[in-house]
Amino acid sequence: MAPSSLFTPAWANTRAAETLSEQAFVDALLDVEAAWGAVLAEHGFAERPDAEELTAIAADRRQLPALAPEQLAEAAAGGGNPVIPLLKALRAELAERGAGDSALHRGATSQDILDTAVVLLCRRAARHVVEDARAAAASLADLAERHRGTLCTAHSLTQHALPTVFGLKAAVWLDGISSAAETLAHAAASLPLQWGGAVGTQAALVQIAGRGKAAELTEALGERLGLSVPDLPWHVQRQPVLSLASALSGVTAALGKSAVDVLTLQRPELGELREPSAAGRGGSSAMPQKQNPVLATLIRSASLAAPGHLSTLHQAAAAADDERPDGAWHAEWAALTELARLTVGAADRARELFAGLIVNEKAMAANLSSAGDLLLSERLMLTMGQRLPGGRSQLQALIQAEAAGAGELRAGLTEALGDSQAVDEALDPSGYLGRADEFIDAAADAHRRRSGENPL
Amino acid sequence: MAPSSLFTPAWANTRAAETLSEQAFVDALLDVEAAWGAVLAEHGFAERPDAEELTAIAADRRQLPALAPEQLAEAAAGGGNPVIPLLKALRAELAERGAGDSALHRGATSQDILDTAVVLLCRRAARHVVEDARAAAASLADLAERHRGTLCTAHSLTQHALPTVFGLKAAVWLDGISSAAETLAHAAASLPLQWGGAVGTQAALVQIAGRGKAAELTEALGERLGLSVPDLPWHVQRQPVLSLASALSGVTAALGKSAVDVLTLQRPELGELREPSAAGRGGSSAMPQKQNPVLATLIRSASLAAPGHLSTLHQAAAAADDERPDGAWHAEWAALTELARLTVGAADRARELFAGLIVNEKAMAANLSSAGDLLLSERLMLTMGQRLPGGRSQLQALIQAEAAGAGELRAGLTEALGDSQAVDEALDPSGYLGRADEFIDAAADAHRRRSGENPL
Amino acid sequence: MAPSSLFTPAWANTRAAETLSEQAFVDALLDVEAAWGAVLAEHGFAERPDAEELTAIAADRRQLPALAPEQLAEAAAGGGNPVIPLLKALRAELAERGAGDSALHRGATSQDILDTAVVLLCRRAARHVVEDARAAAASLADLAERHRGTLCTAHSLTQHALPTVFGLKAAVWLDGISSAAETLAHAAASLPLQWGGAVGTQAALVQIAGRGKAAELTEALGERLGLSVPDLPWHVQRQPVLSLASALSGVTAALGKSAVDVLTLQRPELGELREPSAAGRGGSSAMPQKQNPVLATLIRSASLAAPGHLSTLHQAAAAADDERPDGAWHAEWAALTELARLTVGAADRARELFAGLIVNEKAMAANLSSAGDLLLSERLMLTMGQRLPGGRSQLQALIQAEAAGAGELRAGLTEALGDSQAVDEALDPSGYLGRADEFIDAAADAHRRRSGENPL
Amino acid sequence: MAPSSLFTPAWANTRAAETLSEQAFVDALLDVEAAWGAVLAEHGFAERPDAEELTAIAADRRQLPALAPEQLAEAAAGGGNPVIPLLKALRAELAERGAGDSALHRGATSQDILDTAVVLLCRRAARHVVEDARAAAASLADLAERHRGTLCTAHSLTQHALPTVFGLKAAVWLDGISSAAETLAHAAASLPLQWGGAVGTQAALVQIAGRGKAAELTEALGERLGLSVPDLPWHVQRQPVLSLASALSGVTAALGKSAVDVLTLQRPELGELREPSAAGRGGSSAMPQKQNPVLATLIRSASLAAPGHLSTLHQAAAAADDERPDGAWHAEWAALTELARLTVGAADRARELFAGLIVNEKAMAANLSSAGDLLLSERLMLTMGQRLPGGRSQLQALIQAEAAGAGELRAGLTEALGDSQAVDEALDPSGYLGRADEFIDAAADAHRRRSGENPL
Repeated sequence: MAPSSLFTPAWANTRAAETLSEQAFVDALLDVEAAWGAVLAEHGFAERPDAEELTAIAADRRQLPALAPEQLAEAAAGGGNPVIPLLKALRAELAERGAGDSALHRGATSQDILDTAVVLLCRRAARHVVEDARAAAASLADLAERHRGTLCTAHSLTQHALPTVFGLKAAVWLDGISSAAETLAHAAASLPLQWGGAVGTQAALVQIAGRGKAAELTEALGERLGLSVPDLPWHVQRQPVLSLASALSGVTAALGKSAVDVLTLQRPELGELREPSAAGRGGSSAMPQKQNPVLATLIRSASLAAPGHLSTLHQAAAAADDERPDGAWHAEWAALTELARLTVGAADRARELFAGLIVNEKAMAANLSSAGDLLLSERLMLTMGQRLPGGRSQLQALIQAEAAGAGELRAGLTEALGDSQAVDEALDPSGYLGRADEFIDAAADAHRRRSGENPL
Repeated sequence: MAPSSLFTPAWANTRAAETLSEQAFVDALLDVEAAWGAVLAEHGFAERPDAEELTAIAADRRQLPALAPEQLAEAAAGGGNPVIPLLKALRAELAERGAGDSALHRGATSQDILDTAVVLLCRRAARHVVEDARAAAASLADLAERHRGTLCTAHSLTQHALPTVFGLKAAVWLDGISSAAETLAHAAASLPLQWGGAVGTQAALVQIAGRGKAAELTEALGERLGLSVPDLPWHVQRQPVLSLASALSGVTAALGKSAVDVLTLQRPELGELREPSAAGRGGSSAMPQKQNPVLATLIRSASLAAPGHLSTLHQAAAAADDERPDGAWHAEWAALTELARLTVGAADRARELFAGLIVNEKAMAANLSSAGDLLLSERLMLTMGQRLPGGRSQLQALIQAEAAGAGELRAGLTEALGDSQAVDEALDPSGYLGRADEFIDAAADAHRRRSGENPL
Repeated sequence: MAPSSLFTPAWANTRAAETLSEQAFVDALLDVEAAWGAVLAEHGFAERPDAEELTAIAADRRQLPALAPEQLAEAAAGGGNPVIPLLKALRAELAERGAGDSALHRGATSQDILDTAVVLLCRRAARHVVEDARAAAASLADLAERHRGTLCTAHSLTQHALPTVFGLKAAVWLDGISSAAETLAHAAASLPLQWGGAVGTQAALVQIAGRGKAAELTEALGERLGLSVPDLPWHVQRQPVLSLASALSGVTAALGKSAVDVLTLQRPELGELREPSAAGRGGSSAMPQKQNPVLATLIRSASLAAPGHLSTLHQAAAAADDERPDGAWHAEWAALTELARLTVGAADRARELFAGLIVNEKAMAANLSSAGDLLLSERLMLTMGQRLPGGRSQLQALIQAEAAGAGELRAGLTEALGDSQAVDEALDPSGYLGRADEFIDAAADAHRRRSGENPL
Repeated sequence: MAPSSLFTPAWANTRAAETLSEQAFVDALLDVEAAWGAVLAEHGFAERPDAEELTAIAADRRQLPALAPEQLAEAAAGGGNPVIPLLKALRAELAERGAGDSALHRGATSQDILDTAVVLLCRRAARHVVEDARAAAASLADLAERHRGTLCTAHSLTQHALPTVFGLKAAVWLDGISSAAETLAHAAASLPLQWGGAVGTQAALVQIAGRGKAAELTEALGERLGLSVPDLPWHVQRQPVLSLASALSGVTAALGKSAVDVLTLQRPELGELREPSAAGRGGSSAMPQKQNPVLATLIRSASLAAPGHLSTLHQAAAAADDERPDGAWHAEWAALTELARLTVGAADRARELFAGLIVNEKAMAANLSSAGDLLLSERLMLTMGQRLPGGRSQLQALIQAEAAGAGELRAGLTEALGDSQAVDEALDPSGYLGRADEFIDAAADAHRRRSGENPL
């Protein structure tokens, strides 16, 4: 069962729905309990048949009504977390099957199970994000390469500024998405398991297994779950959560920036880009001609929602009091998982968006041409100021006149300088692109470098 | 089907789950479509049998797989909103049943349906909140009344400050919750329907029905849904959303303030309050003696999460561009409904918490007594400073000595003044309560005044 | 001295700088202390000369180094608030001048002074906002009136949707700004003074003046400061702060919405609007032709920053523990005053923006014309579907062909219907404006109605 | 001149005031311009005397009224940023001094200067934070070491849970602060300069110096300012800002967590900790006995405010459209610098707090003792359940009875088991500390490892 995607089209129908569903949460809780049971049995601290039965129950989860998410959610409110009813259900089921509970939750606390389960979910989500973000980045690297010579207009504060190439726009998106994805890959890869017992001392575990063995068992659990073992429990030291959350929100911001640009450039009055169309996407029931930029719209919606969740998580981390907090921990689960869903959704949309983005080179050329010679005025100021008889102020006057609509800049310059070739050269946008080419290469190189390793 | 309450124990098992479920959302969308169909037919702009069939379909929703939330969520991503697939499904079902679509969605736009549906959900949620908040307030009014003489210790910056009475603490909570609930009641009561057509002009409706009739039909829809009709459509003027959201978050903040106090006062070292216990609530599997303040913990978790949603909604309102926004609108649905769920959940927990809050008067007395005579030092400074032979500085010295542990303040004063009765009187906390009594009355009066009317 | 406007051009050079400067804060703190001294003397609870000297000192503030903001800020860190060093400085100055401290701060607590001072500042700020927002609204009402017939293109999800009139765009901005300003006016008008003594009981005041007199003195202070008297102190019941803050952020959101639209419509490729130009505004040093929409940019920057402050204030309200909080109160001052500055700044910019907004009707007409006949496809679907021989699907095919660039919609329809007049009528955008006219009137009426009363 | 610290006692009187003052901002802007002038001259692209005069002007900044922050702030609103009036003032001053502007701002854009200046400020701020956080961490490592045997009570959801040692509490704070500081050190160390020209292509620079030289000059500027050179300009790719901001907020969260614990443990009813006192700190004018935990209060206030700024920055990054954004960039400066100020302030307070934190071992022992034998019930459940004649349920009954106040747990167990030594051993808290010792070592080791290198 997927959580309420009807309210959040940003991630509906993406891997977010499954990966971070309530069922996936229950599955992860059970995975952690079963893994721990196996570790205990392996090291002689639980009866092997008990551990095996626990694993079997975990495998049968879909057949056991008491383990259904709805059931657990209902029962969870009493203790404030779902592990308490989960254990009750497992204990009952073990008894039902004639097994003991020697392998169940021994030495652990609810927060160990829940934090570790959330880590497992988020790492899986992060893998999806990194995979999709890299795919989007690869498409952007292609676009950047293909359009390194496609002239278009750069804007600042919404106004025409200078010429640029579309390849560089794509390279800037690429650079943001690629570096954010890499930060996420590292944050997710270093997510540790949580294993501290009731107050972060592992007292119960040491009671059961002895001090040296406690460390060994913890290591074994980490190995089994593929998670690193932290220096010490982080029940109330939430930096791992913050690193992950900041990285997730960073990816959504990078994707959001590319989306706002696509949205602007797809405005019909600019018409430089078009989202790929697909059956059933972007249509309007009343206006059959309409093709809405739905992918970019949904990415943008995700980027508007992510920072709110991020701020909640930073507040919660700062309020994580005592050895287990009185509310701050409970506020994390929804904020972190919804932030992860939004990021998975946004990355999925971005992969599709950039794989099929349609570039209208003609529109770019036409817009560049309407921007006209004024687009080169910075260059004129640099190169022509001194050469004109009237100096900089003559040039400024010519530019202002052009801006006011007189349309005589080129002619005026030619007349003043008596050198039409120099003027034409100066006003050729393709000669005023600076290091666009190098920057496109640099973005592609950096992306290759970063994605060479995959810590996740 | 309830949305992901497993991640949000703050509202699991409360009316939030049902009231703001995906199913409830679909129901509301259908209610709006059906109401509009009926209005159209009533005024002669649709075939009566078509409208009736539409109503019948809406009533059969649970039997129609194409109208299931999961189905719609899946199909919604394509167009970015669930109304598009809903209409497709309705059209198919009408055809299946041999009816026409003359009563379906004529003159409306997706946003009309969706915004109005969200308004219906939120108004229902607000009713629950107001009801539960008033119940909580009533319990607090009782507590305030009952404990207007129960002396206890007031703290500022966590330290002992002066004596107060527990009744005043309850009155302050009451005042916050009551005034926040009233603000919400008014914000929710004035929620308007949305009815503007594709770009907020009602062009299609005027085309169908003519100008005067368009207004009349809109009024009729408002009446049928019990919603006010706005001066003009608010597709991209989101003040109604902000008023509601700010009010919801205001309630959660008021409840959160009471929860942090309960959490502090239930700390075993203070022990002045205890949450009501109930079967299955507050227990710990490993520590059978533990009784956790789960209600207050969950309220606090809601109050930590609400402001993030509120900020998202204010960002979205400021980014609501054009005649329908490219993402800002889509970011609202989850933020607003989750904020509403959190508030419903927090109000439900608060109702239960304050209905059964256990006040430990002995602990209050004991803590007051440990705070000792220093608690009256402000009073001493006011009344004794001039009377002592050494003036204020002698008094300060006595107080500092007491604070340092010498424990001779009372004796020292008595000796210096030679008037043990005056000293005892000055050090009697029950004589230094100011207008606590009046303030308790004022809070209760204000609550009565506010809850006399119920705009919702 | 103004706070750091160099980092916040959104409000630099507006009344925000003065109204909410550190000096204004000190002034307000002194105003409250002086007013209280006067009340005490008036009622016989302080020596008249002492109160007069206090008033004289307050008036001489700029000459007294110990009362300089820098001085107080430096000394404030020790106690966590500036009232403590302020009192010390006042006490010293009174002594210096040979006066007693009988009229100084008697019965009050730091939070009484500070909260009341912040209320005074914010009310003044709100007055500026309401004044400027009303001026902006008046300009918008003019624009709406003047352009009720100026056809232009409405967009949804950035794409062409239907025709509209610029007057309605202005009316929607007007409605948002006007209703938000009104909400603010009411929130600011009901801001109460704070007067509760150390723990909200007025114990010290009752000690000094007796119970009945305590109420009377509080009323007298309210009257002197022009502030309402709350039912009970709100030291830790922060609903008044939340109402104000939500209203401020609501205004910024409404202004922000209008700014994003101006920014889009001023894009050179649309060119429908232009900010008023003024000496020294909007220029670029390197690109002399550039005219940046600086006012809208700054408004937008304010609307991006406001929600963060709002969320801080809601978090702080929920964390306002005990009888005075251990940090939550201290986090409020900067958040609330900076939110107020941003809103004052944004309203100031908006007043100027809308007073001089340049509407390019030709560009609107040209853009409408490029949007072409497709802009009327909703209308065609409503009116022509049944009349075409091939029904709705023939029409859809014609529309799709047009959207694909064939450009034969009008001709195709005419041929199919044999009625060129009907086709021309259907494709006339001025005939498909729905109730735009009425809605413009409604927005103007609502604004008139709201601004008829001025609670502030 | 410091920005408005009167509203933000969290950082008043710390290095935040100077480091991030308006004057420091102007200084940094001038440093960047002067450094660039020097680079240009060095490479033969500017007249050496012009560059030297520019450097001289920068050095004389305090004497030049036109360069005063107030002056620039006033003039900045026109163009939306302070670099525009700064250049005007510099140009005038150069002319005044008979120098040319050949070394001034050539090839650069406002955003290059401003972003690089903000980077310089933030790196300096980060250095202060890292320095103070490390000092705080060193104190915490000492406390952890010194109190590895100091028994006290661990709490979960505010209630007694198990025994622990104060050393472990300190170690958990240490671990959070140390790892957050290290993340910040790395984020700040990799902050790049900004150098892209008007639209991120370095077109003007290439025009002036040629392509190869443009890269060389950029490298030379990086070297001169001690900043890395990014792969490409990040005008609208704000990941560097987000990494820094997330790290700053992470530090504040870690400090905030330690502060809430100190605040709780300093409550008089617990009395386990006390902030160091200092002249003028923590006092109350009306209640001379009061010693407020001002340092922790101010840290907590910073941690409540930081997440709002962080969310603003993530919103701004996602809205950084085109080649220079229309408001998103402008919203960053205040958010980022205030976030930095709060973090500098919080780290400063924490250094002082932990350097002098007073640990009341007696109170810890007394509180542990009042918690009583129930604190060991988890252990009893693990070790005694099977040994009792009545098994787990007998044990649970005994525990429940004890929790209900019967106080017969120890006696009951002894009687049932007939082994008072075993019971006494089981109920000895010092035997149930798990791996507390190891975890203290691990936190200290990790801190040593991390602080071995200093990337900043």
